[in-house]
Amino acid sequence: MKDNAIDYDRYDHVRPIRWTGDALELLDQRVLPFTVVHEACRSSDEVAEAIRALTVRGAPAIGIAAAWGVVLAGHGLETGDPAEAARQLEPAMQRLNAARPTAVNLAWALARMRGALANAGADWREALEREARAIESEDLAANRAMGRAGAALIDAGSGVLTHCNTGSLATAGFGTALGVIRAGVADNRIERVFATETRPWNQGARLTVWELGQDGIDATLIADAAASHLMKTGQVQWVIVGADRICANGDTANKIGTYQLAIAAKHHGVKFMVVAPSSTVDMGTASGDAIEIEERDAAELLAFRGKRVVAEGVRAWNPVFDVTPHALIDAIVTERGVVLRPDADAMRALFGG
Amino acid sequence: MKDNAIDYDRYDHVRPIRWTGDALELLDQRVLPFTVVHEACRSSDEVAEAIRALTVRGAPAIGIAAAWGVVLAGHGLETGDPAEAARQLEPAMQRLNAARPTAVNLAWALARMRGALANAGADWREALEREARAIESEDLAANRAMGRAGAALIDAGSGVLTHCNTGSLATAGFGTALGVIRAGVADNRIERVFATETRPWNQGARLTVWELGQDGIDATLIADAAASHLMKTGQVQWVIVGADRICANGDTANKIGTYQLAIAAKHHGVKFMVVAPSSTVDMGTASGDAIEIEERDAAELLAFRGKRVVAEGVRAWNPVFDVTPHALIDAIVTERGVVLRPDADAMRALFGG
Repeated sequence: MKDNAIDYDRYDHVRPIRWTGDALELLDQRVLPFTVVHEACRSSDEVAEAIRALTVRGAPAIGIAAAWGVVLAGHGLETGDPAEAARQLEPAMQRLNAARPTAVNLAWALARMRGALANAGADWREALEREARAIESEDLAANRAMGRAGAALIDAGSGVLTHCNTGSLATAGFGTALGVIRAGVADNRIERVFATETRPWNQGARLTVWELGQDGIDATLIADAAASHLMKTGQVQWVIVGADRICANGDTANKIGTYQLAIAAKHHGVKFMVVAPSSTVDMGTASGDAIEIEERDAAELLAFRGKRVVAEGVRAWNPVFDVTPHALIDAIVTERGVVLRPDADAMRALFGG
Repeated sequence: MKDNAIDYDRYDHVRPIRWTGDALELLDQRVLPFTVVHEACRSSDEVAEAIRALTVRGAPAIGIAAAWGVVLAGHGLETGDPAEAARQLEPAMQRLNAARPTAVNLAWALARMRGALANAGADWREALEREARAIESEDLAANRAMGRAGAALIDAGSGVLTHCNTGSLATAGFGTALGVIRAGVADNRIERVFATETRPWNQGARLTVWELGQDGIDATLIADAAASHLMKTGQVQWVIVGADRICANGDTANKIGTYQLAIAAKHHGVKFMVVAPSSTVDMGTASGDAIEIEERDAAELLAFRGKRVVAEGVRAWNPVFDVTPHALIDAIVTERGVVLRPDADAMRALFGG
């Protein structure tokens, strides 16, 4: 087993966000995998609209895009005074923040940009650009660190199953749960990768298997409902997923279907790993019971790529997230460390609070 | 609670198979729910092709269609000798049998047609037609009986979740698992009906909610992956599904995803009911371990209503069935009786062998 010498670059070619110096180019995730096109945003409002429209998605990627949005907003200002710039930039930052109100990383990234401005002098434009670049490069470094830490938990010859898209496309690069998979493949620990379709948005079918393919990693797509049967065949040793929020007791909110995978994993003795940056940990929320589950428009279940599937007049229920209780989780992997068998004590030991 | 006086007819309007005297009209299930059209088959080979192409689907409906296919094959013969007719009909019956090799009811219905022919005289054409009509009407009666027996297990005020389509569309009428739901609604026992999409064929999204709507039964569609979250909300007391094969120990093969629902149901204390005619019971197969799981073309996961969803070059694994072990099943309901907490002893008590 190699360690630091492992060539992670070989498995890290996809970048959803490119800064050109006067524009932010976003890989349009609405049209992947058939059309690979970057949409250029030249103002903060264009970035806000791209976040709202899901051109860019994934909590870390949204935060990074918003940071660059602030940089773009700064380009339009005349003032050399950072306090005046902060005052004039605030409306644009508010609009960026409102683009996806539930994403924790969005508010976190904007807070960092405000902090950079507060510490800047007349070179506030450069300070903003440095901070956006730092947010992006720190995310990539965190993903590499999580990849290394998560992969270390996996025995050689393993198969893994992932859900939704938690990859390069959702981050600065490398990904969270997909980062562990990339690292595990690079480490020769992971031999088989399976990905769920992830209805109703098909992030697994459209994005995950595509981006793994870009890095030469073979992945096999399955229907969400086939996961338990797959586990029964013995081909999978770990389920590896991301998180939208991790509570103080280790309960985890993530894409709808994650909870079902965790139940099935426990039933089969398959291990369950949650991978997310520490910015996802919310020690102020005691348990998953306190999380309100976002429900989206039923229309997402009633049509597929613009074609209606379901008869008129039919009702659908479309919860977007669910909560996986900590008792079903074997490891929570963050860039600050790994929590094995998470509960309130184990979480407090790493994250304080 | 009413009993035999319950008006089941009120909830039983959909018929997938119509015999006109010289043609078999099949409700084309590939184009439902937007196009409601019957395809007329005028030869046994057209029936075989309709079975192969999934114009008609569902084990009981396939058996009934095949029986009428034999009647159509007989129309083309000159002989008055039933033994000679049997000899000449055999190739057509073989082709019908080969149309969907895994469906137990198909072989069973053809065996009944052979038996009718063996007992017939010069009126063998009428004997075949009587037998086909009997297979169809017995199926409807069995579904009504199963509906009554299954509904009796359900407490008033319950919510239920079903998977795939096991309804009128899959049978002569009324359905198996959906028959229990129809009866439970008629009995005022069931207040909430949920149906999974059932990827990759979307039988739940396309067929189940449509046919329940035809009978005035409101059903709420969910993503397959949302079932566990739904159970956690307490809205569901029973999962009710069909079966493609039931083994001697009560292990049950059914649509992919059934096993996952059974695991989730057990986890939440939700009860799990399998509803299928006794022709589905295979006392010659000791357990589910002996069942080979049919895998279909990966293309079913790669496209959706003719539109490709997944990037070129991606692999998919598309098992069509899975096996639910008897330990996860609370009741197996057949027209011959109900097996509670099924195991080999309980199955033998009802089905012998």
